[in-house]
Amino acid sequence: MSALQFDVGSRVRGGGRLGTLRLPHGVVETPAFMPVGTYGTVKGLTPRQLRGAGVQMVLANAYHLALRPGVETVARLGGIHRFMGWDGPILTDSGGFQVFSLADHVKVDEEGALFRSHIDGAKMLLTPEVVVDLEMRLGVDIGMAFDVCVAEPGDRRAAADGAARTLRWTRRTRAVLREESPTSIFAIQQGGLFEDLRRENAEALIELDFPGYAVGGLSVGEGREDTMRVAEAAVAMLPDAKPRYMMGMGTPLDLVDLCGWGYDLFDCVLPSRNGRNGSLFTATGTLSIRNARHADFDGPLEEGCDCEACIGFSRGYLHHLAKRGEMLGAVLCSLHNVRFYQRLMSEIRAALAADRYDAFRRDFRARYQEGSGGSDG
Amino acid sequence: MSALQFDVGSRVRGGGRLGTLRLPHGVVETPAFMPVGTYGTVKGLTPRQLRGAGVQMVLANAYHLALRPGVETVARLGGIHRFMGWDGPILTDSGGFQVFSLADHVKVDEEGALFRSHIDGAKMLLTPEVVVDLEMRLGVDIGMAFDVCVAEPGDRRAAADGAARTLRWTRRTRAVLREESPTSIFAIQQGGLFEDLRRENAEALIELDFPGYAVGGLSVGEGREDTMRVAEAAVAMLPDAKPRYMMGMGTPLDLVDLCGWGYDLFDCVLPSRNGRNGSLFTATGTLSIRNARHADFDGPLEEGCDCEACIGFSRGYLHHLAKRGEMLGAVLCSLHNVRFYQRLMSEIRAALAADRYDAFRRDFRARYQEGSGGSDG
Repeated sequence: MSALQFDVGSRVRGGGRLGTLRLPHGVVETPAFMPVGTYGTVKGLTPRQLRGAGVQMVLANAYHLALRPGVETVARLGGIHRFMGWDGPILTDSGGFQVFSLADHVKVDEEGALFRSHIDGAKMLLTPEVVVDLEMRLGVDIGMAFDVCVAEPGDRRAAADGAARTLRWTRRTRAVLREESPTSIFAIQQGGLFEDLRRENAEALIELDFPGYAVGGLSVGEGREDTMRVAEAAVAMLPDAKPRYMMGMGTPLDLVDLCGWGYDLFDCVLPSRNGRNGSLFTATGTLSIRNARHADFDGPLEEGCDCEACIGFSRGYLHHLAKRGEMLGAVLCSLHNVRFYQRLMSEIRAALAADRYDAFRRDFRARYQEGSGGSDG
Repeated sequence: MSALQFDVGSRVRGGGRLGTLRLPHGVVETPAFMPVGTYGTVKGLTPRQLRGAGVQMVLANAYHLALRPGVETVARLGGIHRFMGWDGPILTDSGGFQVFSLADHVKVDEEGALFRSHIDGAKMLLTPEVVVDLEMRLGVDIGMAFDVCVAEPGDRRAAADGAARTLRWTRRTRAVLREESPTSIFAIQQGGLFEDLRRENAEALIELDFPGYAVGGLSVGEGREDTMRVAEAAVAMLPDAKPRYMMGMGTPLDLVDLCGWGYDLFDCVLPSRNGRNGSLFTATGTLSIRNARHADFDGPLEEGCDCEACIGFSRGYLHHLAKRGEMLGAVLCSLHNVRFYQRLMSEIRAALAADRYDAFRRDFRARYQEGSGGSDG
């Protein structure tokens, strides 16, 4: 347990709170957003650039790394931190989401999930016990328990079955944890869009006394209204004294809401994936750098942003790079988006600290949604 | 003329020399190697990374930039330096090489070369006068006169015709130069593989009194022995007091030879293009990072290299990135190669300064060719 220490600081009405998460590879001020580096790289960005953008912690994926280059290789190369050249905290997702997203290549039964590699057809059996072993051998700060993420969260029968199996798997996970490990394992709550299922699942998971808890199985295709309704209800079901992680979300507007309800950790592919496609986040909404109206514009992507892309280059240049398919365009646009998300998290933490979160959320939403003429909407 | 000042420092037997090239955007210690940034970007690398790798000056291409985004756009975005975010010296090639390399899309007559854009079919007429105008509007430190690069440098008739037209075009170039321009234009010597043609061409070009001279039309498919024979002869035909630029070369072994003969400036796509393909330069030869033997190797690409890739990452990690097609692999391998070339140029300058060039060249060649077991050959 001593590998993770979490202290809750200021709280605001509605549930939002500041926290300090101490991990073997560093301290994370929460709420915190983790860029996604599935294969051990946040696409196109060096660890130095990530650090410069204010990133505190990154996410990788135990399943993908186990396939390639293999956990043995990562271990021989000094563990995941030295492997990636990132000396800060790292969290790995377990592969539970891949059971869902790669469903055509997976057979699931009570024992676990048998993957046929989408790369070379090789088979890999993931079980709750195997996943913990992979994560510990990778040497991550936080690993996730192996869970069942259902494809139809609105199907009560599927949601109930998924939550029940998740609970059984999480019990098996708990049984193999060693207290002295530097890797802390978080349990994942499931239950689809059904609050009673989620409550029941959470209560049983809490009895297992994990050092942190996540909400899984959301943002998998259901409408945003359902997502956010369940997200708000779910966070209150998880222990107040432990870090609460919303998996795989979200947009800037999502984060502003979720932080107001008391989530502490987030990850999402949006900043890097959208960056590669030339879709940029700004305080006044998103813009597509490929839009012709940016071609001759000599101002920055976003006024006031301190990222390397905004400090050093015009929108016109970034438009040129994107239109030419130049790698540097993908790099700089990813860098801006990653920095935008980190600036947003800083602003969220500042608003929580100053106990002015409602006003911050209202102002942010108004500015982001209405735009100021600098946005494509 | 005052926009460019060139001072020759130490000289060694064989013709090699140190120099200092003062340009509007900075001082270049020569011999110097320019990475290629055809479209206004050295692929995948930020200006900060280039600077960190020791790059003094970069090359772009006036023809390509005139097509996309257009010289008007670059000018509206503050000129090429602000456009690229590179505040050091920039040289642009003229498009003469593109007449050769895009021959299927070009009609050449005495007036100039009519390109059909390979992007959208739009037509663009390049003439000696147009090229100078483009380069001056881009605002480069050094522009190249529009020349004729022949496809068969060993065909005497073609080489003679090409050199003669190059001379006529260079006279037209000279006629439109303004003394007060911050852009210095270099003339390009042609003449294929024929030393008498090159001598005749050089003598006529020298009469036109350009601030610098280049050797063009080599390394276009002829054998290396021919290339190097002509290169060695050609440099001695150009003014000793002016910068002498070998265009489009070369390998590390080429550079070591060329610097020994008195060339001052170089450009080549090799470091960045090979880097993107995972082919790495080291003092003991090249290696392919995709080779399976690197998969579990936790040492750096090259012992003793101070680049971000070598300092921060193992060969095993770079192998993983390359095998996964990860953008960061292309970035880091390009960065290493660009840094390798800059370290090589530093070593060359140090050997020239210490008057131990022959020993340096012999040792470098032996180590590079024989390898030390760290190389794929």
